Amino acid sequence: MAKDKKLVEEITAREDDFAQWYTDVVKKAELMDYSSIKGCMIFKPGGYAIWENIQRELDKKFKEVGVENVYMPLFIPESLLKKESDHVEGFAPECAWVTYGGLEPLQERLAVRPTSETLFCDLYHNIVQSYRDLPKLYNQWCSVVRWEKTTRPFLRSSEFLWQEGHTAHKTEEEAEEFTIKMLNIYSDFCRDYLAIPMIKGRKTDKEKFAGAKATYTIEALMHDGKALQSGTSHNFGDGFAHAFDVTYTDENNELQHVHQTSWGVSTRLIGAIIMVHGDDSGLVLPPKVAPVQVVIVPIRTDDEAVAAKCNEVLDSLKKEDIRVKADFSDKRPGWKFAEAEMRGIPLRVEIGPKDLEKGECVIVRRDTREKTVVKLDELTEKIKEGLETMQSDMLHRAEDFLNGHISDAHTYDEFVDAVENKPGFIRAMWCGDVACEEKIKEDTTATSRCMPFEQEKIDEKCVCCGKEAKKLVYWGKAY
Amino acid sequence: MAKDKKLVEEITAREDDFAQWYTDVVKKAELMDYSSIKGCMIFKPGGYAIWENIQRELDKKFKEVGVENVYMPLFIPESLLKKESDHVEGFAPECAWVTYGGLEPLQERLAVRPTSETLFCDLYHNIVQSYRDLPKLYNQWCSVVRWEKTTRPFLRSSEFLWQEGHTAHKTEEEAEEFTIKMLNIYSDFCRDYLAIPMIKGRKTDKEKFAGAKATYTIEALMHDGKALQSGTSHNFGDGFAHAFDVTYTDENNELQHVHQTSWGVSTRLIGAIIMVHGDDSGLVLPPKVAPVQVVIVPIRTDDEAVAAKCNEVLDSLKKEDIRVKADFSDKRPGWKFAEAEMRGIPLRVEIGPKDLEKGECVIVRRDTREKTVVKLDELTEKIKEGLETMQSDMLHRAEDFLNGHISDAHTYDEFVDAVENKPGFIRAMWCGDVACEEKIKEDTTATSRCMPFEQEKIDEKCVCCGKEAKKLVYWGKAY
Repeated sequence: MAKDKKLVEEITAREDDFAQWYTDVVKKAELMDYSSIKGCMIFKPGGYAIWENIQRELDKKFKEVGVENVYMPLFIPESLLKKESDHVEGFAPECAWVTYGGLEPLQERLAVRPTSETLFCDLYHNIVQSYRDLPKLYNQWCSVVRWEKTTRPFLRSSEFLWQEGHTAHKTEEEAEEFTIKMLNIYSDFCRDYLAIPMIKGRKTDKEKFAGAKATYTIEALMHDGKALQSGTSHNFGDGFAHAFDVTYTDENNELQHVHQTSWGVSTRLIGAIIMVHGDDSGLVLPPKVAPVQVVIVPIRTDDEAVAAKCNEVLDSLKKEDIRVKADFSDKRPGWKFAEAEMRGIPLRVEIGPKDLEKGECVIVRRDTREKTVVKLDELTEKIKEGLETMQSDMLHRAEDFLNGHISDAHTYDEFVDAVENKPGFIRAMWCGDVACEEKIKEDTTATSRCMPFEQEKIDEKCVCCGKEAKKLVYWGKAY
Repeated sequence: MAKDKKLVEEITAREDDFAQWYTDVVKKAELMDYSSIKGCMIFKPGGYAIWENIQRELDKKFKEVGVENVYMPLFIPESLLKKESDHVEGFAPECAWVTYGGLEPLQERLAVRPTSETLFCDLYHNIVQSYRDLPKLYNQWCSVVRWEKTTRPFLRSSEFLWQEGHTAHKTEEEAEEFTIKMLNIYSDFCRDYLAIPMIKGRKTDKEKFAGAKATYTIEALMHDGKALQSGTSHNFGDGFAHAFDVTYTDENNELQHVHQTSWGVSTRLIGAIIMVHGDDSGLVLPPKVAPVQVVIVPIRTDDEAVAAKCNEVLDSLKKEDIRVKADFSDKRPGWKFAEAEMRGIPLRVEIGPKDLEKGECVIVRRDTREKTVVKLDELTEKIKEGLETMQSDMLHRAEDFLNGHISDAHTYDEFVDAVENKPGFIRAMWCGDVACEEKIKEDTTATSRCMPFEQEKIDEKCVCCGKEAKKLVYWGKAY
């Protein structure tokens, strides 16, 4: 047994060193690897397959609300990036710059896209003329580059994968409505598919996107009590439209500026899955997003009847569109169990000669390790039930964890104490002044995560300066 | 009627100026647009949706043979690109180079990937140790950059979308077998899905990929008689493995070099679809790859019964997984017909008040323009049949066209005459000497397209130099 535990022993315990545990899981579950290019990661099959599942599901939801996919150039001329002043300030310092094309120096250097607002504005400037051309609801799946000094797999790297939606609307109201609609798609998807509950709200001006009028965010809580910004949706108003001259002729033949939005989620979501659901044996994947949902392990590989039954089960589960694999390798069963656990496969089916005699097999859940003996002729139904139960149990556990890690602070002392001693979100009132945000960050490293949509007045005064409170804010340390 | 024809009149006739016709169709069917970045294109929804369909289908076929998707970094350090000498010679002159990261100059410049052999070799060097780790069958869907001086939508641009598969095998035989397997997947896909027949064969040394031992190709024939290289599959032997030190310990505990392959198709395939199937009214899409397979046009938009029936038909076709849209816009029917034709939608269903009275409607095929009056209660079946028939008719027409545009040349005069007067492929014998390939290219602009798998000896002597013939070669002008 000692040897079978090797895989598990190779990862740091989660409570000992969360950061090291995270890196170990990423590595041992073969999700990602470092490359020889500073700050750039390799998405290995295990990690990329999760992203493919996220993509497929979100893409379907985008298309249901009329979004169309496009692909825009990888490069942005410096002059185009500079057209909107807040935007260029936010992004130019972290761009990678192309200065040579082939053997010749370029006349104007090109940024490798850090985000594509400027390209979409340029396109909309060219293709939007009349109110009949609106709305434009475009999205692209691509990689973006932001030159980061420190990197962490999935959470922060110089290149990452994401989708960026960019839309143009006739009116302010329509743009605002669409901004919120996409935020809700993100939040519903994370809850229903990734089993991660989100706090939804608006970012303060200090934390909003460079060039946006309003930024909305979904914030998740990791197991170590730190927040992870998991997706954002921005309403640009007509700021970009003025900078890029994106106008249309309205029904009364008058020239109007469009109102724009953008919204994105990235491979960060994979980091969230790991840090919300993982445990000391490795990854735990919610069944809906798991590339492999069921692994079948024959208890004796030299037994032909067992092998035949495993193959039969494999085929019948495949027919039900369950993502299933059988592990016929010559490793010992204990090792196979540990490997399947490390990779977070939701259900394990064990079939041995004695089980066969009794017409039974064993199902083991990854999250609770609960074992159930099941009649072989009921296996498909039990597997389906098991996947559903595990998905909803994982969500409920994550909800309980989130709800158990929100504390209210009414005084600055309470606030400082909470940051130090109560991992999780802190709810506290705020006067609206950026100076208070800065002081809090300076004193505690906590930042304002969002002003939740469901506002309450838990106190009359700002937790920091004591002036009149304007907003309830969720605060926290964050990734 | 004059006004309804406007859309069509805006495109050049195919026989008048094929190149201009192509550009017009790309533009008017809204597949692609030029961007403000030299050589870079914008994939608009109509073009990108075709690529998504190609991706989905090919990706399924890749996974069926055990290929796993990954994502590798966008950048390649210059030193890594230089490790294999033929390879760097082939690609370095057309790389875009990143020299600044944020505000600081980089110590080593980075190429924006023109192709990723070097990165995969670097990865395999790190992760392959034992024969148990083989084969590695990885693929990625991404964009690549090659700094082109002249560009044409889908055919040649500084950035394009593709997939690149990279595999590592134990033996030479296994690598060769896999190289051919992937070529066959490409060729079957093009025939069965894009309705494009391919000539399959091996490239001459002059035309092979930089660093490959053998390059295999699928070559299609465009309507103007020029060839389009549509996909390639390379066997690298152990050349890259030596350059990058990719080794494994075999079953006898001896150190061996792996044998590698790579294979790719790109958004060029969309160019092939346009140039094989398009006509003077625009695009003609094979049903299997068409983003919209059926458009429903109400003949009177102000008739409630007609609108209701259109919606009913829309829903019932959607339920059958047919990709269908209804055009309820306030444009005139003739205009809608022209627009649907321009976009290449395979079937058009017309429903008017008189049809309703008779319980009928009209189906019009995009390719033949054949009209069929159909009972409404048989519509779904007829649509399914119509899509299948059109798909196979399109393939047969393309096959007939290909077979009708292959001529044999036995003498150099015949060869030169064929290049000038017989658009299409020319079959002629070759001695194997690169000097003859160069002379032929110099004299006629035709190049060797491939040495077909099915070799015949149509003559004893090389068509160019008269020396002993070694291979039958397909020659032609090419994109």
